[in-house]
Amino acid sequence: MHPQTDTLEFDEYRLKLPDPNMIPRLWRFYNRLQTHLRSSPFSTDVNTCAIIDGKSIANDIKSSVADEINKMKNCIGKCPGLGIVLVGQRHDSHTFIRLKLRACHEVGIATFLKQLPEDCSQDEVYHVVSKLNDDPDVHGVIVQLPLPRHLNEDKVVEFVSPEKDVDGLHPLNIGMLAMGRDPFFIPCAPKACIELLLRQGIEITGSRVVVLGKSKISGLPISLLLQSHLATVSTLHAFTDNPEHVTRQADIVVSDVGNPNVVRGHWLKPGAIVIDMGATQVKDSSRQCGFRITGDVCYEEANKVVSAITPVPGGAGPVTISMLLSNTLESAKRAFRFG
Amino acid sequence: MHPQTDTLEFDEYRLKLPDPNMIPRLWRFYNRLQTHLRSSPFSTDVNTCAIIDGKSIANDIKSSVADEINKMKNCIGKCPGLGIVLVGQRHDSHTFIRLKLRACHEVGIATFLKQLPEDCSQDEVYHVVSKLNDDPDVHGVIVQLPLPRHLNEDKVVEFVSPEKDVDGLHPLNIGMLAMGRDPFFIPCAPKACIELLLRQGIEITGSRVVVLGKSKISGLPISLLLQSHLATVSTLHAFTDNPEHVTRQADIVVSDVGNPNVVRGHWLKPGAIVIDMGATQVKDSSRQCGFRITGDVCYEEANKVVSAITPVPGGAGPVTISMLLSNTLESAKRAFRFG
Repeated sequence: MHPQTDTLEFDEYRLKLPDPNMIPRLWRFYNRLQTHLRSSPFSTDVNTCAIIDGKSIANDIKSSVADEINKMKNCIGKCPGLGIVLVGQRHDSHTFIRLKLRACHEVGIATFLKQLPEDCSQDEVYHVVSKLNDDPDVHGVIVQLPLPRHLNEDKVVEFVSPEKDVDGLHPLNIGMLAMGRDPFFIPCAPKACIELLLRQGIEITGSRVVVLGKSKISGLPISLLLQSHLATVSTLHAFTDNPEHVTRQADIVVSDVGNPNVVRGHWLKPGAIVIDMGATQVKDSSRQCGFRITGDVCYEEANKVVSAITPVPGGAGPVTISMLLSNTLESAKRAFRFG
Repeated sequence: MHPQTDTLEFDEYRLKLPDPNMIPRLWRFYNRLQTHLRSSPFSTDVNTCAIIDGKSIANDIKSSVADEINKMKNCIGKCPGLGIVLVGQRHDSHTFIRLKLRACHEVGIATFLKQLPEDCSQDEVYHVVSKLNDDPDVHGVIVQLPLPRHLNEDKVVEFVSPEKDVDGLHPLNIGMLAMGRDPFFIPCAPKACIELLLRQGIEITGSRVVVLGKSKISGLPISLLLQSHLATVSTLHAFTDNPEHVTRQADIVVSDVGNPNVVRGHWLKPGAIVIDMGATQVKDSSRQCGFRITGDVCYEEANKVVSAITPVPGGAGPVTISMLLSNTLESAKRAFRFG
């Protein structure tokens, strides 16, 4: 091919510059708002470090979810339903499911728990998932991860109907998220992260953001979501040299590596915003349970430097689970064409 | 919820650190190789600036695609088929299609061109696409973009079967790419970008990469792909302040903004690698065609600073189209379980 034609050919592979409409519809309203909420979110006055109270935000969300479900019941006599697939006997998985069931009951979401033995086959899991996919009373389907090693987790997640994938982990939903389109559902942890920022009135568009970690469930979709919000995102991970060099340049640091206190005070720019998605159990004999929950960010150092930070526990954690509830409600509203 | 339980709940939203197996299979072989190919890709000796010859790489790829297709014909009497949907009369679209048809014929890919009038309906496009989706002689389906404004482009792209989406633009394929899994197809421009880097023996894992631009077709999937290769990626766009501050820190700069010469020499770190995906027509009365093709990077300044650079034209462009051919071959091989 001669120069002219090959580049003409190539020239087509060009798209427009970022379009603010790429911001998921869910938050466009916030985004129009946020500039009024906080003139300069990145205050360099260390005395103004705000502790972002995830619990009260989570309670706000849960009560508004509960209100909407009440309305739904009163108007059409229906309520949202969440199908949960639980395989095997992992202690932590059973704990998580108990918590999810409790949270659902608190807000009035009906739950359909399907338990399978540790040694069940891939087809048995498919069978249970497809029954939930087809059940009109079920609006959200989640499979408790991790699954036993002999099962193909990716294939099971893909088997969940994207329209009921309230964990937002189906590749189709991740793809829509990446492309700045509205997926059926946004994964809960990333949705929580953005919710925390927006409720603080933090300007995301144009800000320099560092996301530490690139997990499929959290770090990756957080980066994608922040990019849809037109932040300039750098994603750091285990193969990044001198991460502190990059984090020091960030207006917003989101950490999701599960490495207690890895982010030190000198890693952060004065006045930055820190969302700590990390939550690791650290042995603590002084506690009745024998451990305490520690975030990725060294809180005592960070809160002397930054302008806002989420504590661990009580920060991103509670908001994350409230997002599962709001995703399930959202799905039911779509199914019933309600509201 | 009390601290312990809410964070336990949250703690499950954690995944492992990046896993080298997340590198798309296609390139794992290269990745094992590359460290031997070049001890230090980021030479600071400006005299060693290598001009990456995209044309010869494209010719390599095309001839190996042609060889494989010959083998296929001889062994099973079959050849790959590419279905092309062309709507309306846009001059550039017709030029691109001519070029794609020519390239296909050069390597022995059968083509099925379906033309629709400018004023056709969304359903008419669906109808044509679904016939190609169902045709066993067609292994790749591409819809020439942009479509007329009255048509929903996203929906049409989604309508292409992911298994035949040789442009790699279906959200499911983008999602798989984002999640570090093997999509059915990787979009051509990003695939070309990585191919250019790997053929230069450039170490991607752990390198600091800046991608300028986040288009669905090119910039976005390039960032995703580079992340799967465990680079530390920062994606810059129109809302980024002082982009040069970030680009100066990068080992590899990939530009895809379609803004002639926007990346100046002082934007680049000595010894960096530059992949210029930009290709904009600039008026040039001295040329018979009345224009010349200009990249995003100011070549004359950059080649004094960097250790390797792709020229425009003759760099990423030719490799990009060769990737459409290799994707189509790949699809046929899967369909015929050949090789």
